[in-house]
Amino acid sequence: MKAILVILDGLGGRPTDLDGATCLERAATPNMDGLAQRGALGLMDPIRPGVRPGSDTSHLAIFGYDPFQVYTGRGAFEALGIGMEVRGGDICFRTNFATVEERGGELIVVDRRAGRLAEGKELEGAVNGIDLSDLGVEFSFRASTEHRGALVLRGENLSAAVSDTDPHETGVPIAQAKALADSQAARRTAEILNAFSRRAYQALKEHPVNRRRRESGKPPGNALLLRGAAVMPHLRPVTEEYGVRGACVAGGALYKGVARAAGLEVLDVPGATGDLRTDLCAMAKATLAALSDYDFVFVHIKGTDNAGHDGDAQAKTDFIERIDREFFGTLLAGLDLTQVHLVVSGDHTTPPAAGEHTADPVPALFVGPAIRPDKCQKFSERAAGEGGLGRFSGRLVPQLLAYCDFGPKFGA
Amino acid sequence: MKAILVILDGLGGRPTDLDGATCLERAATPNMDGLAQRGALGLMDPIRPGVRPGSDTSHLAIFGYDPFQVYTGRGAFEALGIGMEVRGGDICFRTNFATVEERGGELIVVDRRAGRLAEGKELEGAVNGIDLSDLGVEFSFRASTEHRGALVLRGENLSAAVSDTDPHETGVPIAQAKALADSQAARRTAEILNAFSRRAYQALKEHPVNRRRRESGKPPGNALLLRGAAVMPHLRPVTEEYGVRGACVAGGALYKGVARAAGLEVLDVPGATGDLRTDLCAMAKATLAALSDYDFVFVHIKGTDNAGHDGDAQAKTDFIERIDREFFGTLLAGLDLTQVHLVVSGDHTTPPAAGEHTADPVPALFVGPAIRPDKCQKFSERAAGEGGLGRFSGRLVPQLLAYCDFGPKFGA
Repeated sequence: MKAILVILDGLGGRPTDLDGATCLERAATPNMDGLAQRGALGLMDPIRPGVRPGSDTSHLAIFGYDPFQVYTGRGAFEALGIGMEVRGGDICFRTNFATVEERGGELIVVDRRAGRLAEGKELEGAVNGIDLSDLGVEFSFRASTEHRGALVLRGENLSAAVSDTDPHETGVPIAQAKALADSQAARRTAEILNAFSRRAYQALKEHPVNRRRRESGKPPGNALLLRGAAVMPHLRPVTEEYGVRGACVAGGALYKGVARAAGLEVLDVPGATGDLRTDLCAMAKATLAALSDYDFVFVHIKGTDNAGHDGDAQAKTDFIERIDREFFGTLLAGLDLTQVHLVVSGDHTTPPAAGEHTADPVPALFVGPAIRPDKCQKFSERAAGEGGLGRFSGRLVPQLLAYCDFGPKFGA
Repeated sequence: MKAILVILDGLGGRPTDLDGATCLERAATPNMDGLAQRGALGLMDPIRPGVRPGSDTSHLAIFGYDPFQVYTGRGAFEALGIGMEVRGGDICFRTNFATVEERGGELIVVDRRAGRLAEGKELEGAVNGIDLSDLGVEFSFRASTEHRGALVLRGENLSAAVSDTDPHETGVPIAQAKALADSQAARRTAEILNAFSRRAYQALKEHPVNRRRRESGKPPGNALLLRGAAVMPHLRPVTEEYGVRGACVAGGALYKGVARAAGLEVLDVPGATGDLRTDLCAMAKATLAALSDYDFVFVHIKGTDNAGHDGDAQAKTDFIERIDREFFGTLLAGLDLTQVHLVVSGDHTTPPAAGEHTADPVPALFVGPAIRPDKCQKFSERAAGEGGLGRFSGRLVPQLLAYCDFGPKFGA
């Protein structure tokens, strides 16, 4: 038996999106409606009723983790989100390239964002070239958009109980990281960060990118400020808990990162992107191909959420129709529905009328030989409200894998 | 966007209430049925399935707090319930006026309830006149019904880990409060209580009320026994978490107290009482008026529960019809339903056939522009069982405020 979870990011909508209907209700979706006729629907609160989910917390909950227990702050999942490899126990920081000036032996922050520089990627190598081996710690840095990035520290005896080196104001020195707990690990981590601050300045101050910026009158990115220390939680891989091999087909970095943390292998799918241009046929073909090697495939399609954030109900409707035609058309042509359990849902509701994630429950569709069919004839929010699976909180992956008879019994 | 939560206390019923129907099913409620036709219904377990809620615990859960975490015992919410101002960290006790006799330098309890005296309110001033300033603690006392009342201690370094001064039997001395934890705060609190016991006797023994009672052969209320120490939890105000201004329209003291603890301002509504005589039109008008100054109005109507406790199904049915006509008739005449989200539900089920709170799920009605309508045509328990919102536990306020797009995102 094989398991497929398809998350259409931000799938759910509101009646205000399209003059009394949601995009999913208005879209022509014959393939998903056919699945609804064979299976059963329900309503999912990704985290719990009335909680407006982030993409990170909702995916944790969908994979069966309790985000109130394991979500330690944005730092860790931000690093995952820009595609870094992060392991349980790693200490993660959000970073800014900043502009500092030497005055009386101190490094005074004059621009916390280095003029929102565009050359972060060009400076990445210099930062990663810093040597911290004398301090017994490994690290990895990645630049993302403008001045932003993330830093991951890895090693024994580290702690997230440290204060920021970002002073959060200008005209003052780079802050000295301090231990926020009375522990040797916290004191050691603070020392590492302070050494890192000094060495980053040495590595960046005469970098060709910064010389060029100074020459053209722009503030150089000659310092790296750290904030929001968070430890990456040790997640027990679902693949280990359920004794399965799992794969991920996705375009967006965050979803690949959560999937990796949950024990899935991230497949390389040319053409799969985190926006509306993604190659949906390629994603379906990659899913079908993965079924020969893996028990469980997690597919993440991001564009629905992008259209929701843009407030573009027509684009969301059109993209849902493309998903139905291109992704599900391709997938179903190659699938034996007696040998697979399939779940289609969202990670939260992003109504174009709201332009943001909302806490409204999300429609969920389950189909496969173990699923008791209900009366629903269509995949939509309103049909899901009448569905045979009722209303539940998160935990799509545990339910899906359990329908496949994977996984342990709790108790005897 | 505005938010209104209307709690009809003890709303739900059982088929045994009226020969196969509940009071809500039997009552003519054209206004609430009209709302059901525009909105969607669901079933709420106030705390969780199978838990029989108190009024305090159910309201905590409805406001989004976890009563298993924050409910520390009856003392704190009893003090709120009789209208006292209680803050997070205050130590609260339930109290009895009692009759003691001096024998061999000890105060022997001869009647734990002082003959269920009626003059508690007249003794209140004498108790509040006790001076504890040398002990560095503030306190407040309020008498409620018969011999009952509540005491609230406020100050640094206090603890609820103290034993009762109520010996729970007669013929023995007033108990010495003892520290139940090895902490300086617990020892200090026990000392304060023992000093309070002695000083209360001094303040009460020659009080004119007690002289009068002795002269007419009644046991005097010359001591105050304390029991059930509980610390008032620090609740994070929902108004702060969601960034809204909230108001409360209610008759009963407990509901005003919980609302205050949740950050709402309690409005003075002449005619609003905690029984069947409340002025429902005045409550509706106060709600409408509050919408110009507040984002969120919590309305609590108590009489449905009173009729349920009295086992009077006819009175409950009649009162539900009055609520529909007078409260909702007035409210809906002044409301633009495209600009408001409205929830109508109960805090628990009080079936007249049971005469008590029961754990049965409670019907809940949501209406407003973001709510996906379902097929329900009527507001009733059975309709709610077929409603598009399924079944969920408590958390009406977080859901309501989230539909209005108030509040933070959990995660990124």
